[in-house]
Amino acid sequence: MYSPELFFRRPEFIHSLQQVIEFLGTFAFAISGIRHAAAKKFDWFGGFVCGIAVAIGGGTIRDVMLGVTPFWMTSSIYMICTIFAQVFVIVFSKSLKRLDNTWFAFDTLGLALFTIAGMQKTLACGFPFWIAIIMGCMTGCAGGVIRDVLLNNIPVIFHKEIYALASIVGGVTYWVMYSLGIDVSVTVVTVFSVVCVIRYLAVRFHISLPQLPTEDE
Amino acid sequence: MYSPELFFRRPEFIHSLQQVIEFLGTFAFAISGIRHAAAKKFDWFGGFVCGIAVAIGGGTIRDVMLGVTPFWMTSSIYMICTIFAQVFVIVFSKSLKRLDNTWFAFDTLGLALFTIAGMQKTLACGFPFWIAIIMGCMTGCAGGVIRDVLLNNIPVIFHKEIYALASIVGGVTYWVMYSLGIDVSVTVVTVFSVVCVIRYLAVRFHISLPQLPTEDE
Amino acid sequence: MYSPELFFRRPEFIHSLQQVIEFLGTFAFAISGIRHAAAKKFDWFGGFVCGIAVAIGGGTIRDVMLGVTPFWMTSSIYMICTIFAQVFVIVFSKSLKRLDNTWFAFDTLGLALFTIAGMQKTLACGFPFWIAIIMGCMTGCAGGVIRDVLLNNIPVIFHKEIYALASIVGGVTYWVMYSLGIDVSVTVVTVFSVVCVIRYLAVRFHISLPQLPTEDE
Repeated sequence: MYSPELFFRRPEFIHSLQQVIEFLGTFAFAISGIRHAAAKKFDWFGGFVCGIAVAIGGGTIRDVMLGVTPFWMTSSIYMICTIFAQVFVIVFSKSLKRLDNTWFAFDTLGLALFTIAGMQKTLACGFPFWIAIIMGCMTGCAGGVIRDVLLNNIPVIFHKEIYALASIVGGVTYWVMYSLGIDVSVTVVTVFSVVCVIRYLAVRFHISLPQLPTEDE
Repeated sequence: MYSPELFFRRPEFIHSLQQVIEFLGTFAFAISGIRHAAAKKFDWFGGFVCGIAVAIGGGTIRDVMLGVTPFWMTSSIYMICTIFAQVFVIVFSKSLKRLDNTWFAFDTLGLALFTIAGMQKTLACGFPFWIAIIMGCMTGCAGGVIRDVLLNNIPVIFHKEIYALASIVGGVTYWVMYSLGIDVSVTVVTVFSVVCVIRYLAVRFHISLPQLPTEDE
Repeated sequence: MYSPELFFRRPEFIHSLQQVIEFLGTFAFAISGIRHAAAKKFDWFGGFVCGIAVAIGGGTIRDVMLGVTPFWMTSSIYMICTIFAQVFVIVFSKSLKRLDNTWFAFDTLGLALFTIAGMQKTLACGFPFWIAIIMGCMTGCAGGVIRDVLLNNIPVIFHKEIYALASIVGGVTYWVMYSLGIDVSVTVVTVFSVVCVIRYLAVRFHISLPQLPTEDE
């Protein structure tokens, strides 16, 4: 019989799992930045900057606002991961498109993990839940906005995909479950699933947020 | 007989008045961001981000540079105000244009108040007046620049309207009056009026700053 | 006989030389921002903001990430230097193009100096060398990216010129020489020369980084 509790009694397994997801998520985020850069004919340096911007941009803004040292300055893993992503894009450029479902999966895992990580860090700094939700969303989403600004594009999450909303609903779920006194392990797994499922359903069924009304009719 | 001193002897009145102006200013700033987002066909999330960017962007950059916690993380009023603005734009989209003079008035009040608030916070942190003037201007103006960057527009205050200049002249007025030893209440009211009047006159008489000279003739 | 050691025994000379280079570099950076702003028909305020963005943008992001007060808030010299640059562009707009080699020289000196200054400040804050290299590069390069974002252009250093790479190679050189226990004065002069020479050669022989591969062939 499958027993999720088993995992939670093995903290070293959870820790490793989290690190694997963080690596996959960072990798997928960096790949996204580098591919967009390639589409605009950026050079290797521009590609790396766009990759790193997606991978660490959101968390960096969060940490600056929280008043702590940006997370990527405490471990070189994010830089290394982006270098891997850069090499991967350069070597396997012709195969990237075929792997689109893989990137989507990794990216979604990353969004879910970064949302939770951003929330937990904010709560650990003593801020209330509504700020944690904003920071969780920012951790997952702001990097993509920076990428689009650097590429001189209109940020895609502002007019096309449901992306930030998955993070926000996940954040609210976290708040509700915490308020109900539910065990934190159960909460984290639930929030993680909620973010992934919403993101998946939105893309699968082409669900998007309503547009703002225009004035000129 | 009208006596402005009377108000200053009632600090709770001044405090309430300041809060009302701050709410109106934040509301007008958020409306400006959301309307610009609507013009670019952003969805609800994009509209909210643009609204909040105008409302809190300048003050956030100021606070990060001053090394203090961003002001909007200490009170949820700015988020709530932006949510109101968002609902207002969605419900009353057809009436927004007719209220343009109202938005202009609120926006001008906001610019004046945020200039003064930004200066006073900077001075309270122990920085000299020239930094306070820059921070006052940034508090009032940087949000609009962030909005234009997110919308992939050229920032309007860089080439069209006199906006930042009103804030800067207000800041210099503050400095001069402070150096002359004038009472702070009188100074604040004067600076507030100076910013509003300059902004009003610039728009009323289509006054703009000279363009930079071009090189290619 | 020429003896570079002589200079290093005269710290006041070195200090003055550093200040002169810093002023020239800041001036050239500001000129670059203002000229780009002029090409987009910005007004005087927009020109000043673009000038100051190039001059202090990179160092400001660095200082915010390091958790220290932005350097330009501790001395008014950077504002004054940008005001000079602004007046210069307005008065001598027709002569700017003829001086292009001068701007290039000043800009290159600035890049080299800001790289070293950014690295030394980061190391002094206790961070490891790989972060110092990133911060050195950011100090020299991020201002130009901010300028391009404000002007609604694609950042030029991402797809055209070798600029950041000169800074990074200089940073790696610093690291290697430091690890070898070489005297810091010799290291600084070498790094300075390396950055200048790479930048010069790249422009002289039209060397650029390879483009990222595109996916759609």
